[in-house]
Amino acid sequence: MALNLDIIGKKYEGKPLTYTPDDVILYALSIGAGVDELDFIYEKNLKVFPSFVSIAGDLSILFTMQDDVGAHLPTVLHGEQKMIFHKPVPISGTMYTTGVINSVYDKGDKGAILNFIFNAKDENGQLICESHIIIFDRSAGNFGGDRGPKTEKFESPEGIEPDFAVEYVTSPNQAALYRLTGDKNPLHIDPDFAKKGGFERPILHGMCTYGFATRAIVHSVCQSDPSRLKSFATRFMNVVFPGEILIIEGWKTDKGDYIIRTSTQDGRVVLGNAIAEVE
Amino acid sequence: MALNLDIIGKKYEGKPLTYTPDDVILYALSIGAGVDELDFIYEKNLKVFPSFVSIAGDLSILFTMQDDVGAHLPTVLHGEQKMIFHKPVPISGTMYTTGVINSVYDKGDKGAILNFIFNAKDENGQLICESHIIIFDRSAGNFGGDRGPKTEKFESPEGIEPDFAVEYVTSPNQAALYRLTGDKNPLHIDPDFAKKGGFERPILHGMCTYGFATRAIVHSVCQSDPSRLKSFATRFMNVVFPGEILIIEGWKTDKGDYIIRTSTQDGRVVLGNAIAEVE
Repeated sequence: MALNLDIIGKKYEGKPLTYTPDDVILYALSIGAGVDELDFIYEKNLKVFPSFVSIAGDLSILFTMQDDVGAHLPTVLHGEQKMIFHKPVPISGTMYTTGVINSVYDKGDKGAILNFIFNAKDENGQLICESHIIIFDRSAGNFGGDRGPKTEKFESPEGIEPDFAVEYVTSPNQAALYRLTGDKNPLHIDPDFAKKGGFERPILHGMCTYGFATRAIVHSVCQSDPSRLKSFATRFMNVVFPGEILIIEGWKTDKGDYIIRTSTQDGRVVLGNAIAEVE
Repeated sequence: MALNLDIIGKKYEGKPLTYTPDDVILYALSIGAGVDELDFIYEKNLKVFPSFVSIAGDLSILFTMQDDVGAHLPTVLHGEQKMIFHKPVPISGTMYTTGVINSVYDKGDKGAILNFIFNAKDENGQLICESHIIIFDRSAGNFGGDRGPKTEKFESPEGIEPDFAVEYVTSPNQAALYRLTGDKNPLHIDPDFAKKGGFERPILHGMCTYGFATRAIVHSVCQSDPSRLKSFATRFMNVVFPGEILIIEGWKTDKGDYIIRTSTQDGRVVLGNAIAEVE
């Protein structure tokens, strides 16, 4: 099926998200935060995990845009996510999101890469977060397009102890809770639907795992100050099942960034090629 | 401090609660339901735990009424709760709550008993649930009032095996999650506030424990059909700390009702003098 490349550069406006501290707290609980991280789950001195922005409108336009570009949903994968945090996320307010497909690359038989950019702004028009999202359509390659640049590689070094390592146990109900933040794809709750998709049982949202990793970074190298996290980029490598253990490790680079690896209890790397910029 | 008995019989209107399946699911998760109880946490064939009604407006007027009657908040305890379910709770809609203080009894040096009755109705004015709530004010006795009738006793029989027994482990974050359903009393999240109240750490909402017990009854003797639970009455005997285990046991009476006892892993009875009517 041919992609409609005419929409490259067309700006989409998401539905504004008006949210309260309750939404911020629900998000924090849904990425595993708890009473030991009181400032993230109690409105008294509330702090916001920066990845909260991912629930603000991105999703509603993402589906419209995928539809308009003619991506074939059953062969579509969320490939990569980079969030660049420009200012701290307010604890309440309205967030305005715009999205654009920036480029489409032709990877031949492997498929097509769709590069989305989303901006989330506050009521004053100030940019809170810029998100680069790569959607991979396995069935849309060979349209005679540009192959695009090679992806930058951030390999976690072999045989070197990480500078930090955090272990988080996800709950069997993690996806059930996370979906209340907005992404209602039945793949994350419905056993029959999951089986049809080729999974033995419902899988965790990739962006929930991304949230767990963000949380680990904020606590491990930002002294629990979310404003110190400047960006976090990763590739989605493998699925996570609710109830699995996530091990998030970080290696400091010479530049001061952290190469991040997130794996499960059995050694499957679930988020790889990942890097976090920290102030 | 003298109570203002003039408000006996005065009808209060609560703020209508408009809710969605998401609110129903959040409530179910907050009383410990999980992926093994899919119909209660997934909108596809959604069922509603009847105790959901307790979050619908009762609280907002309860505080106003306590204030108007002159109850002294620091000496006030939630003593008992009986919910009578007239029809199944819709999975979404608007619920309208009215409240009245029906009577006030004088227990002398022990304090005063305030008997509240709340009605929750649907958009068509049909009664969903009638709640009898007893608030005990330890400092308001000896006002020369009626002592009131003796409470009915529902003792769990000694030495007889229960007809059902369910064990639920509460999460350390149970109160943090439950408070998102509406009751934001810092006693349930703030360690300093809890200490000032005489507790070593934040305590679980009594109505959260009530929800766990309701859930146990629905699954154990209603074949997971919430419409079969007709009423559930209990007295709050002891506090529960998030993370504790709740053991809910039931003994069938000759009439077909169930005497219920809820205790913790160390044998403290937390909900006692409890009875459930089941169809």
